[in-house]
Amino acid sequence: MKKGVMRPGHVQIRVLDVEEALKHYRDLIGLVEMDRDDQGRVYLKGWTEVDKFSVVLREADKPGMDFMGFKVLNEEVLEQLHGDLVAFGCEVEQIPAGELSGCGRRIRFVAPTGHAFELFAEKERTGKWGVGNVNPEAWPMDLKGMRAQRFDHCLLYGDDIDATYELFTRVLGFDLAEQVVDPEGNRVAQFLTVSMKAHDIAFIKHPEKDKFHHASFYLETWEDVLRAGDLISMTDTSIDIGPTRHGLTHGKTIYFFDPSGNRSEVFCGGDYHYPDHEPVTWTVDQLGKAIFYHDRQLNERFLTALT
Amino acid sequence: MKKGVMRPGHVQIRVLDVEEALKHYRDLIGLVEMDRDDQGRVYLKGWTEVDKFSVVLREADKPGMDFMGFKVLNEEVLEQLHGDLVAFGCEVEQIPAGELSGCGRRIRFVAPTGHAFELFAEKERTGKWGVGNVNPEAWPMDLKGMRAQRFDHCLLYGDDIDATYELFTRVLGFDLAEQVVDPEGNRVAQFLTVSMKAHDIAFIKHPEKDKFHHASFYLETWEDVLRAGDLISMTDTSIDIGPTRHGLTHGKTIYFFDPSGNRSEVFCGGDYHYPDHEPVTWTVDQLGKAIFYHDRQLNERFLTALT
Amino acid sequence: MKKGVMRPGHVQIRVLDVEEALKHYRDLIGLVEMDRDDQGRVYLKGWTEVDKFSVVLREADKPGMDFMGFKVLNEEVLEQLHGDLVAFGCEVEQIPAGELSGCGRRIRFVAPTGHAFELFAEKERTGKWGVGNVNPEAWPMDLKGMRAQRFDHCLLYGDDIDATYELFTRVLGFDLAEQVVDPEGNRVAQFLTVSMKAHDIAFIKHPEKDKFHHASFYLETWEDVLRAGDLISMTDTSIDIGPTRHGLTHGKTIYFFDPSGNRSEVFCGGDYHYPDHEPVTWTVDQLGKAIFYHDRQLNERFLTALT
Amino acid sequence: MKKGVMRPGHVQIRVLDVEEALKHYRDLIGLVEMDRDDQGRVYLKGWTEVDKFSVVLREADKPGMDFMGFKVLNEEVLEQLHGDLVAFGCEVEQIPAGELSGCGRRIRFVAPTGHAFELFAEKERTGKWGVGNVNPEAWPMDLKGMRAQRFDHCLLYGDDIDATYELFTRVLGFDLAEQVVDPEGNRVAQFLTVSMKAHDIAFIKHPEKDKFHHASFYLETWEDVLRAGDLISMTDTSIDIGPTRHGLTHGKTIYFFDPSGNRSEVFCGGDYHYPDHEPVTWTVDQLGKAIFYHDRQLNERFLTALT
Repeated sequence: MKKGVMRPGHVQIRVLDVEEALKHYRDLIGLVEMDRDDQGRVYLKGWTEVDKFSVVLREADKPGMDFMGFKVLNEEVLEQLHGDLVAFGCEVEQIPAGELSGCGRRIRFVAPTGHAFELFAEKERTGKWGVGNVNPEAWPMDLKGMRAQRFDHCLLYGDDIDATYELFTRVLGFDLAEQVVDPEGNRVAQFLTVSMKAHDIAFIKHPEKDKFHHASFYLETWEDVLRAGDLISMTDTSIDIGPTRHGLTHGKTIYFFDPSGNRSEVFCGGDYHYPDHEPVTWTVDQLGKAIFYHDRQLNERFLTALT
Repeated sequence: MKKGVMRPGHVQIRVLDVEEALKHYRDLIGLVEMDRDDQGRVYLKGWTEVDKFSVVLREADKPGMDFMGFKVLNEEVLEQLHGDLVAFGCEVEQIPAGELSGCGRRIRFVAPTGHAFELFAEKERTGKWGVGNVNPEAWPMDLKGMRAQRFDHCLLYGDDIDATYELFTRVLGFDLAEQVVDPEGNRVAQFLTVSMKAHDIAFIKHPEKDKFHHASFYLETWEDVLRAGDLISMTDTSIDIGPTRHGLTHGKTIYFFDPSGNRSEVFCGGDYHYPDHEPVTWTVDQLGKAIFYHDRQLNERFLTALT
Repeated sequence: MKKGVMRPGHVQIRVLDVEEALKHYRDLIGLVEMDRDDQGRVYLKGWTEVDKFSVVLREADKPGMDFMGFKVLNEEVLEQLHGDLVAFGCEVEQIPAGELSGCGRRIRFVAPTGHAFELFAEKERTGKWGVGNVNPEAWPMDLKGMRAQRFDHCLLYGDDIDATYELFTRVLGFDLAEQVVDPEGNRVAQFLTVSMKAHDIAFIKHPEKDKFHHASFYLETWEDVLRAGDLISMTDTSIDIGPTRHGLTHGKTIYFFDPSGNRSEVFCGGDYHYPDHEPVTWTVDQLGKAIFYHDRQLNERFLTALT
Repeated sequence: MKKGVMRPGHVQIRVLDVEEALKHYRDLIGLVEMDRDDQGRVYLKGWTEVDKFSVVLREADKPGMDFMGFKVLNEEVLEQLHGDLVAFGCEVEQIPAGELSGCGRRIRFVAPTGHAFELFAEKERTGKWGVGNVNPEAWPMDLKGMRAQRFDHCLLYGDDIDATYELFTRVLGFDLAEQVVDPEGNRVAQFLTVSMKAHDIAFIKHPEKDKFHHASFYLETWEDVLRAGDLISMTDTSIDIGPTRHGLTHGKTIYFFDPSGNRSEVFCGGDYHYPDHEPVTWTVDQLGKAIFYHDRQLNERFLTALT
């Protein structure tokens, strides 16, 4: 948290049918529905998250990610980063408080990979869902499906990941936790963190701009990943791959698709990061093992199914 | 245990190089080396098994299974079953005590699928490995690799699984725990048990006789299956599929290959069976889900890589 | 299964208030309510059990166990065992079919420890709860609380455990899986099994007859034991001890009390048994470790809180 | 990380016999021995830690903690915090680089609770033990005992926890993650964090200064906590309590004693914290549940066995 950016705060995902999408994000992944707005957007979150929402579903003609937002420490930080983004060369759009239900003002900018990002300092704090702040129980009894704990990160595909790296590290204070490097020494994947997590945002180099690979949600245990796999089958949900482990970050994972074709991940574990840690490097000849630690080979779908 | 057959007692596996095979069965799977004989065969077992050995490795020109043996209650049962096998139409070969180190006399016969099976009543009882019989600790400290607990079952491919079904159920007292049935009502896979386990032996219909699909070893937990997957990668072992769950038996599993091309499974969990349980039926249109519950589709290799 | 006794089939437990008891057995332990009868008895079972019920709650003035029943293979076995029980010296009572809802005729006898036991061959088979017998899913989605899989065994305290040992082993075909032995070589605890489980019934020597220590229910994993402990706290249920491991059987366990003071156990894991296995012996000087493997000392309550 | 303090960096523990202590910290907990110095001190660390060491064992006449050190971002931060500590009223001692093998210069001060703390910016970076920084495997194969991943935090008992709270929050940039509050609103326990962990240091109010309750080491899973309990028994190590869950932080834990009487904890899980999170409050009437979530009552030993 070198520049006051704390964590991923929300992601707005385009879906073809909101009610179908709710069966996925709410009933299957187990996010909690928190609100709807007059645009028909639905707000959800994982039960451990203290802010009002972290996932926004917007009905649209094509799937994908509208934007991802990061929460910063306070208004002063927001103001400072606004200036820093402009100085870096970004066009910054101001979005007034309340445009997202319960969220303070946001500043939005487009990264060199073509993805829209936002920063904000204030969001209504409803507290963890189902447990109080005084003598809290270990978990709430009424969770559904995979019982996801929180929105964790996104993996995005885009072209200019080098400039995006500069933006996230120099302006926003992220660290490079892990990377994939080709024989010429070029970074083809970068996993960036702003706190102790193995990644808060990740980018893979890809000829097109602004592609969405997946949004990821945190589970507590490897047994939860198994249960997730079971639920994917029981609900006839389209699976991508898993349960397995990643080489990158060493998280334990399963991938599957929402009814609109957006990929979701649920995972647990994974390495931790401190600012003095050297980045971990995977060489591109070991890319299969880097992505899928057990199979040690990529499935084509993982590289090409993007929204 | 309707006819006095208790459990799978041993399997003799052909390997191209015994020392290479030991890296697989002893160092990776974690079986304990118990003995070698003057034919160069190596004897191993899982640490929870009380008899001296359950896996015999024999160096040969081609991989596969020589035979699988079942332990029966006592000599009277052995004598009775000898007669019953002959009455069923089997040729029964007598193998004297000591031909396998520490094993009593065996009677051997060939099932209609072409596989050789044996029955025996006596084997040297060395006790669980690494823990005593008085005030025993929970587990021994010096286990290696996947720390497999026991040899559990084999899956075999062969042609006449119907007659083999008759042999195992009517003569040997096995129950049909699970089956896969085609639209005409023919059984194309049968999982047979002689006690509470989901299967002690399984057969899949296949045009050739006497093919070996895998030998399976029991682990304690789903976390052990993850560790097994990790060890498969760390040792550059050829993986087939997993970690995943089966639909059939609902066990949690991972498959991989020994250096000779024989498939191994390690798994945990799985349904239990009592003699009054109706068999579970999977329909062949759901074969993918029956085999790999999460992916819901077969990989070609699982059906065709046989030894 | 040497004499045709297959498994524990049911236990009838006395409770002071049936509706309060249902919060415990149904909502907390997660048994499924299957029926009620005109005596006000409530019938429940774990979801993996194929027979209609395994637990019967009867409202009464004092808690405890009315009787425990074992299912046998068929009517012939039942008839044979009737004669064998009489020959052993038991008075055998005949209870007509239908006295327990959906259960065939039962024969009841009192063991030398003063506990009533029953044998029966028929019970309505409703199948596993929530999953079918064709292409079955891994588990049903609507389970409650601890999601107990099955009624597993009882531990009973009584005086003449030696004669009861003779009854269970010689007449009913049970094996001694584990025992606790005092310095004079007397057995002070005996864990008896009739199949592969570490125990189907256990007895501890105690000056009074006919005391009930606990009924035990099977969970799948150590993580389920943790969840059970969490639920015990969340519901303000009286806990005895756990989560921990037993030395005896090495099962992983937690104990707690129903509102009437009857002790319940939920557990997972545990050693397996075959008829040729030597019994495991714990010496009474290691009784603390035998019962609670981690603490290695008994709490007074475990020895004295009986119903 | 508001003031540049990153994480707990080391703890120096007094033990009565270093070789006996190594059986505990190295062979049982599974820390890796990294070095010894000419004072006879032994340096260890958990395998995931990138710095050279995190635990120092010093042979002495009585057990306890000599000091705990925190790593800061860089020399500028160290200089700044030196000034801030003096301004707060601390006497600050300078300890030259190399006094601890491989550690840069440290500044040491005594908190109002009487405990000695240190800050340092540089320590030899040997990397994670047993895995490289390029294409790293999931874990090293040669870990011992409990395979502890890292030194995580200390819990200390002392008198003036209010002034110590001021010191850690205002000067060092820690957040209050959780607290126990008495009916008059006084904080009697405070769990402080400087990053995402539920606690990096914790204090409980106690009449004496400078008492050491425990040093804690991080495990990966609840199954590792079970294994830890098993190993405690197998090695006849003195146990305090567990496996269980805490109410505070909701971590899953087991406590035991080193041969000198210092308490150790190994744990997994636990809530996460961000700087905008409200502190969690436990009321002192629920202290039993706050400390031991399942038993809901304290054992006297937990409150009084201090070094």
